[in-house]
Amino acid sequence: MPYYLGLDLGGTNVKAGVTDGQGKLLTHVSIPTADATIKGRASLAPKIVIRRMVDAGRQAIAKAGLQLSDIAATGVASPGQASLAKGVVLRSANLPLWENVRIRAAVSRGLNLPAILENDANAAAYGEWWVGAGKSRRIDHLFMFTLGTGVGGGIIHEGKVVHGASDFAAEIGHTIVVPDGDPCGCGQRGCLETYCSASYTGKRASRQLAGSTKVRKQSTLGPIFAQTGAVTAADVAHHAEAGDAFALTIWNQTCRLLAIACINVCHFIDPQMIVLAGGMSQAGAFLLQTVDRHFRENWWKMTPPTSTIALARLGNDAGVIGAAGVAKRAHEQGQLPPAGK
Amino acid sequence: MPYYLGLDLGGTNVKAGVTDGQGKLLTHVSIPTADATIKGRASLAPKIVIRRMVDAGRQAIAKAGLQLSDIAATGVASPGQASLAKGVVLRSANLPLWENVRIRAAVSRGLNLPAILENDANAAAYGEWWVGAGKSRRIDHLFMFTLGTGVGGGIIHEGKVVHGASDFAAEIGHTIVVPDGDPCGCGQRGCLETYCSASYTGKRASRQLAGSTKVRKQSTLGPIFAQTGAVTAADVAHHAEAGDAFALTIWNQTCRLLAIACINVCHFIDPQMIVLAGGMSQAGAFLLQTVDRHFRENWWKMTPPTSTIALARLGNDAGVIGAAGVAKRAHEQGQLPPAGK
Repeated sequence: MPYYLGLDLGGTNVKAGVTDGQGKLLTHVSIPTADATIKGRASLAPKIVIRRMVDAGRQAIAKAGLQLSDIAATGVASPGQASLAKGVVLRSANLPLWENVRIRAAVSRGLNLPAILENDANAAAYGEWWVGAGKSRRIDHLFMFTLGTGVGGGIIHEGKVVHGASDFAAEIGHTIVVPDGDPCGCGQRGCLETYCSASYTGKRASRQLAGSTKVRKQSTLGPIFAQTGAVTAADVAHHAEAGDAFALTIWNQTCRLLAIACINVCHFIDPQMIVLAGGMSQAGAFLLQTVDRHFRENWWKMTPPTSTIALARLGNDAGVIGAAGVAKRAHEQGQLPPAGK
Repeated sequence: MPYYLGLDLGGTNVKAGVTDGQGKLLTHVSIPTADATIKGRASLAPKIVIRRMVDAGRQAIAKAGLQLSDIAATGVASPGQASLAKGVVLRSANLPLWENVRIRAAVSRGLNLPAILENDANAAAYGEWWVGAGKSRRIDHLFMFTLGTGVGGGIIHEGKVVHGASDFAAEIGHTIVVPDGDPCGCGQRGCLETYCSASYTGKRASRQLAGSTKVRKQSTLGPIFAQTGAVTAADVAHHAEAGDAFALTIWNQTCRLLAIACINVCHFIDPQMIVLAGGMSQAGAFLLQTVDRHFRENWWKMTPPTSTIALARLGNDAGVIGAAGVAKRAHEQGQLPPAGK
């Protein structure tokens, strides 16, 4: 039985994992992305990082008690903007020296394995579809929100990742949910990301705490803000769940706009399941129930919803597992160039 | 060379057309949907209407100087909600007696041709992709807005219609663009349809004309409103283009939200082309230029747009041609049940 290697490139860590053909994760290795022996930006230079990815891959394979020859293919999940079919990372906010990096071919040569490049949010969505929240074999249409510092998305349609014409699809964080809304780092106004990311949820609360003595006195978030000068989305979630009225108002704003985004996802591509992942999903049932309530309250009256909202199940492993999964799919469909090419 | 028959079912007319394998429309027939010899709702009963569709199909084939045996397959474009794979129309607002109608099999039997069912907005999008605005062979990702009484959508992804898990995809008119916005007939608030359809654009102008003597006096739309009690989207477009400030404000509101919807379409599924069709598109270059200006003004600063906005080219023939097109595709892929099944 062939095994698959998943590599997940992040700004902080490089992760590697080996799965069997059913998506069971046999081993997991995580090493810092940067080479600690090199100073400054050069520690994140493409050649350095790719060597580390190859190392992490070899470690994961060895740790599983396998040989390179047991691995059929490897999937590489990368952040930033890419030309996926060409296997090139065009640029990435967290990897400043990366420009037009032929990462797929380099990893393929380094490991002597057929390789495929995938966007990291797409890979995570594929992982959740394959063996996570969407594991049920009846599901072949799934959408995933990754709610962290930013808001990412991934579309699985008929069991395949949707990339769009220029590999720009599922940039859900920059769909505009509030015309003339808050400015976003991207240059637009009212992006979903500026309302529903973990970072902006914390910022929105902090801004209002900073602006009002009354809020600081009445809210249980007041003392935290007084001490640290800021509150996080996790603080907001905890205090909202504990019944603090101000925290609950902030939490409901986030969840309501996320619910409206879910409605738009349904009307747009009609998935069977919408998965909530990323830092915000650590609020667990409290996130799911609040979003689901707003989803149902705001859904049209014509027909009941045909999508279920669910929490992600694979946590930080989703990217590695999904990368292995897209490698398996491409391998089985004979879509991969030979090793080293 | 095989030919294809397209049938386009509407609440008012049934259209039929024959195309060759390149999508050239050879003939076009349009007859009323209702049987004029029958009174009331029964004139639109499924059996009656399907018989008329079959008749229109036969007429179109004869008019082209062809025999039934020259036709490889027929595509049926239908409004309303359907189970497309099963070939069943579940319900349709404009066809009150239609419930769970096995339209595909009935048309297939009536014409003795292999048949396929498609949603009308999807069929029109496919037609525009095949031989209309998106004819260029380099385009295989296209999104179409149909801006009429309502707002419909169609997604072409890798040269195929995207249906979603429950055939609900591309219900773009009911994506929410203004949270807590105007109520929509569907039960939601702030739907795209309540801002960008032709009917609501006319209504928004009429409402403001009704509410303000000053607006009625200053705007060149005032006399029309005084005479008829309402203005249409076409009135708004004409007077806006002629320089009337009030008409231009209304027109810009519509075009700006439509531009934001275009931005969301891009971030969502990343098409190469967005096509504007339906009644509103009769405003031609004035619509296109206004939407395109707002699109560029509101687009993010990260990368330039990779989608072009264009006007539809096939007018009312898009549905018939697209229906023939989806029949051709399914026929060539061996996906059609035999005639009469």
